[in-house]
Amino acid sequence: MHYEFRARRLVEFADTDTAGIMHFANYFRFMEAVEHAFIRSLGETVHEQDGHRMAGWPRVEVSCRYFAPVRFQDTVEVHLLVLRKTDKAITYGFVFRKVNTDGTLEGMPVTARGVVTALYATNHTPDGRMRAASMPEAFVRLIDAAPAELVGQEGF
Amino acid sequence: MHYEFRARRLVEFADTDTAGIMHFANYFRFMEAVEHAFIRSLGETVHEQDGHRMAGWPRVEVSCRYFAPVRFQDTVEVHLLVLRKTDKAITYGFVFRKVNTDGTLEGMPVTARGVVTALYATNHTPDGRMRAASMPEAFVRLIDAAPAELVGQEGF
Amino acid sequence: MHYEFRARRLVEFADTDTAGIMHFANYFRFMEAVEHAFIRSLGETVHEQDGHRMAGWPRVEVSCRYFAPVRFQDTVEVHLLVLRKTDKAITYGFVFRKVNTDGTLEGMPVTARGVVTALYATNHTPDGRMRAASMPEAFVRLIDAAPAELVGQEGF
Amino acid sequence: MHYEFRARRLVEFADTDTAGIMHFANYFRFMEAVEHAFIRSLGETVHEQDGHRMAGWPRVEVSCRYFAPVRFQDTVEVHLLVLRKTDKAITYGFVFRKVNTDGTLEGMPVTARGVVTALYATNHTPDGRMRAASMPEAFVRLIDAAPAELVGQEGF
Repeated sequence: MHYEFRARRLVEFADTDTAGIMHFANYFRFMEAVEHAFIRSLGETVHEQDGHRMAGWPRVEVSCRYFAPVRFQDTVEVHLLVLRKTDKAITYGFVFRKVNTDGTLEGMPVTARGVVTALYATNHTPDGRMRAASMPEAFVRLIDAAPAELVGQEGF
Repeated sequence: MHYEFRARRLVEFADTDTAGIMHFANYFRFMEAVEHAFIRSLGETVHEQDGHRMAGWPRVEVSCRYFAPVRFQDTVEVHLLVLRKTDKAITYGFVFRKVNTDGTLEGMPVTARGVVTALYATNHTPDGRMRAASMPEAFVRLIDAAPAELVGQEGF
Repeated sequence: MHYEFRARRLVEFADTDTAGIMHFANYFRFMEAVEHAFIRSLGETVHEQDGHRMAGWPRVEVSCRYFAPVRFQDTVEVHLLVLRKTDKAITYGFVFRKVNTDGTLEGMPVTARGVVTALYATNHTPDGRMRAASMPEAFVRLIDAAPAELVGQEGF
Repeated sequence: MHYEFRARRLVEFADTDTAGIMHFANYFRFMEAVEHAFIRSLGETVHEQDGHRMAGWPRVEVSCRYFAPVRFQDTVEVHLLVLRKTDKAITYGFVFRKVNTDGTLEGMPVTARGVVTALYATNHTPDGRMRAASMPEAFVRLIDAAPAELVGQEGF
């Protein structure tokens, strides 16, 4: 069972704003990109579309706390943890740390911590509207909530 | 004292994603734009810069719950409420409703509800780093938390 | 026949970057938004989707020249001109000027000038792929190229 | 002397739009990211800020032609070429190709071709405004225009 994933990403010029820091909304783009990389690492995908039939993971609730800014050309490591898994939804936690110039994380504090709950939904419904559905077998089989100890260590 | 504000905004093509709906991170852009419009409506501004001296409102914590999608060319009305005000921080609530084609909100359910806490900060500090500071007199004088009844009506 | 349109838009915080100015890619978001507002002003729409049947205006070629930056909370007026219209494509020119604090454009120089060529395309094709098609009658009937004199005045 | 660079990048969900393809403005974000990676590969940086002293490469003119769309989770390879270098400006060409699932480019057509001209500018001026300046020695020494044959092969 898989319950964590790490990915690094550079803060690009277009991610920043006039205050000289990464714009707060872009942390959610980073979280989404890491979530999708996690799913790809399991050989699965988060969005399927075949003509007008579509299945995906719309967000139900998201949040982020910011402790310190990151800036243009900083590299951040995002640590994804599966916080909860139910029949229809997965809640991910994301911990952001700036990477040292030598590539290590040693001594680097958490700069932000985010949570995203996504619901499996399809439009394979009588009226063609997207509705929550039981998640595909592959997600049930491959993904599980992280151990409580790890979750606690990461401050959730 | 001012504690609420309403603004309408069109969902543009660049706000949407492959799922055919407004991308979830863009709700935070909408919230920020409405917050800034609220502040401008009071004759104030959220960002001041004079050479390297800078003052602004970095975000401390944000969240959003999504109840129904909005799509390209939908008009949404965002209702801003001041949920809390302390000496250094303001917490805003935002309620999103889709506007009817006749321009009314009649019968339109809430499609999303967001919360943003922003902290007043300046770099007028010995080491030039941004740090929380007491908010400017104008903000203290002009802005107050909304009445509990209104806050409750809007579901916060 | 319609061949020009003007719209004003505020530069928002999320439109800016670390250099303290509107990020260059966002000019294309502004152009697109004004193009869509022009089309809406004619009672038409730029994107139609019905199940998997889709019609729209993918971009074929775009360009922008930048003469002076615009910043957070500047208001810009974008003047759209139809530069060319063929059977399948429309080329729009866009002139950006910063609006004075009194709301006039008097004495304001052009800050950017962009060109966008969009092609009408549908996937109403044997293999369901998007392909260029003759544009809808409404576009043929309502839109025409601007007079050469006006085009020249705006520097195209 | 350095005159070309290649980088791969995934099309993310937030890069796409309702038409199911990468939004046209985001190609410019990709170009900028690859330009910055090229400069970093030379041990240099594109943006320097020290208090209110700032130096950077504002864009003067950009363009892009689109031949075929790219979609969510496509990997694109962007080939950067230095098309021209003057005393104060650099013009980059960018060729976009979708990468095969086996990681090769074999048989993959060009999906887009972009051009960006950036000017070196600093605000080390009497009035503190950003103005074109002679580019730093490192850029003069390290970067040169690509050979005409290579430029021609890539369709510029």
